[in-house]
Amino acid sequence: MSEYKLTYFDIRGRAEISRLVFAAADVPYTDERVNRENWPALKAKTPQGQLPILTIDGANTLPQSLAIARYLAREFGLSGKTNLEHAQCDVIVQTTEDLRSEWVKVFREQDETKRAELQKKLIEEIVPKFWTIFQVTLTSNPTGYMVGDRLTIADLAVYDVMEIHTRDYPDLIKGFPALLTHRQMVADTPNIKKYLEKRAVTLY
Amino acid sequence: MSEYKLTYFDIRGRAEISRLVFAAADVPYTDERVNRENWPALKAKTPQGQLPILTIDGANTLPQSLAIARYLAREFGLSGKTNLEHAQCDVIVQTTEDLRSEWVKVFREQDETKRAELQKKLIEEIVPKFWTIFQVTLTSNPTGYMVGDRLTIADLAVYDVMEIHTRDYPDLIKGFPALLTHRQMVADTPNIKKYLEKRAVTLY
Repeated sequence: MSEYKLTYFDIRGRAEISRLVFAAADVPYTDERVNRENWPALKAKTPQGQLPILTIDGANTLPQSLAIARYLAREFGLSGKTNLEHAQCDVIVQTTEDLRSEWVKVFREQDETKRAELQKKLIEEIVPKFWTIFQVTLTSNPTGYMVGDRLTIADLAVYDVMEIHTRDYPDLIKGFPALLTHRQMVADTPNIKKYLEKRAVTLY
Repeated sequence: MSEYKLTYFDIRGRAEISRLVFAAADVPYTDERVNRENWPALKAKTPQGQLPILTIDGANTLPQSLAIARYLAREFGLSGKTNLEHAQCDVIVQTTEDLRSEWVKVFREQDETKRAELQKKLIEEIVPKFWTIFQVTLTSNPTGYMVGDRLTIADLAVYDVMEIHTRDYPDLIKGFPALLTHRQMVADTPNIKKYLEKRAVTLY
C-alpha cells in the first residue's frame, strides 16, 4: 500500500471528496491541514500554487482536486467496473464541479446587493437544476447508486456538493425524495458513517 | 469497434479535444454539428441541456466534454499506461479547463471597458501563468511528451487550449520555446497532421 498525504486548508472545500474516497475505502493517509499563515511559504513549493495536493510515497505530487479524487477512486475500486462506468462517474464528478463553481461565484462576489441577488438565483434556480440532474441520474439506475451497482466516487461527490445547501436550506431537499434517500444511504455506509462521526465541524 | 457520434456546435470549443483524440487514434466517428436554430429542440433531449454529447452505439449518451474526452482517451490508449499516468493526464486536462474558464469569463463579459481590462490581464498574467505550468510539466519529462513516453490526451489538450492565443498573440509563445517545440511535435504527428489539414476553419 502506498503512503498518502493529502494537503489542504482546514475546511472541507475541494479536498473533502478525496477524504470521503479515503474513508469509503478505509485507507489510511495523512490529512495535513495548512493554516493561512503557513500557506504563502508552501504555495511556492506546490506544482500549481494551489491546494489540495496529494503526495504519494513522498515522491509524486499531484495537484488538481478532481484528478486527485479520481486517481484515488480508481486505485481503491470506487470508480465503477468498466471504462463506461468510469466515464459515468466522471460525468457526475464534473457536474458537481459545475455546481461548486456556481456556488464559488456567489461566495466571491464583493458587492453585497449583487451577492444577495446571485444567492437567490443560486437557491431558486441553479441548485434545483443540478439536483434535478442528480435525481434523474439516480432514478434512471435501479440499484440506488449513481453508477453501476455499488458505491462510487459519483455517490460521494454528490453527497459532498449537497452538504452546504442541505444544511443552510433544509427544506430544499424535500422536493427531491430520491436524493434524500441516497444521502442517507451514503451517510449510513459503515466506513462513511465512522468517518462522519469523528469529522471536525467546519463551515465549508 | 463501437459506433460513435459526437454532437456539438460548428466550432472547436469544448468538443475539439475529443475530435483530436479521435484523430490521434484514427478512429472513425460521426462529427455532428448543430446549428443555433436546431439547438433549442435538441437541448431538451440532452442529459444536461448542454453540448457536447457523445452517443455510443446509439445507446449510451455521455455529456460533459472532459468526461467524454477522457473516456475516449482511455478507450484508445491515449491516457497513459498506469493509474498514475492517467492521473497526470487528468491534472493537465483539468488545468487546460481552468485556463479555458478564464478565457470564457472574458468572452462573456458584456461591459466593453471591463472586458478590455480582463483581456489585458488574461494575456499579460493568466495565460503566461498557465503556459508556465505546461512548460514546467513538459521540461520535467525527458521524453518531449507531457506525460510518459508517448502522445496522450495531455499533449492534445495543451495543443488545443493554446490555439486561440498562439493565433491572436503570435509573439506570446516566443517566451516558451519548449511549448513551441511541443506544439510542432503534436501538429506533425501523422494522424493529427492529416486531421488539421482537412479541418474546417472556425473562429473558436
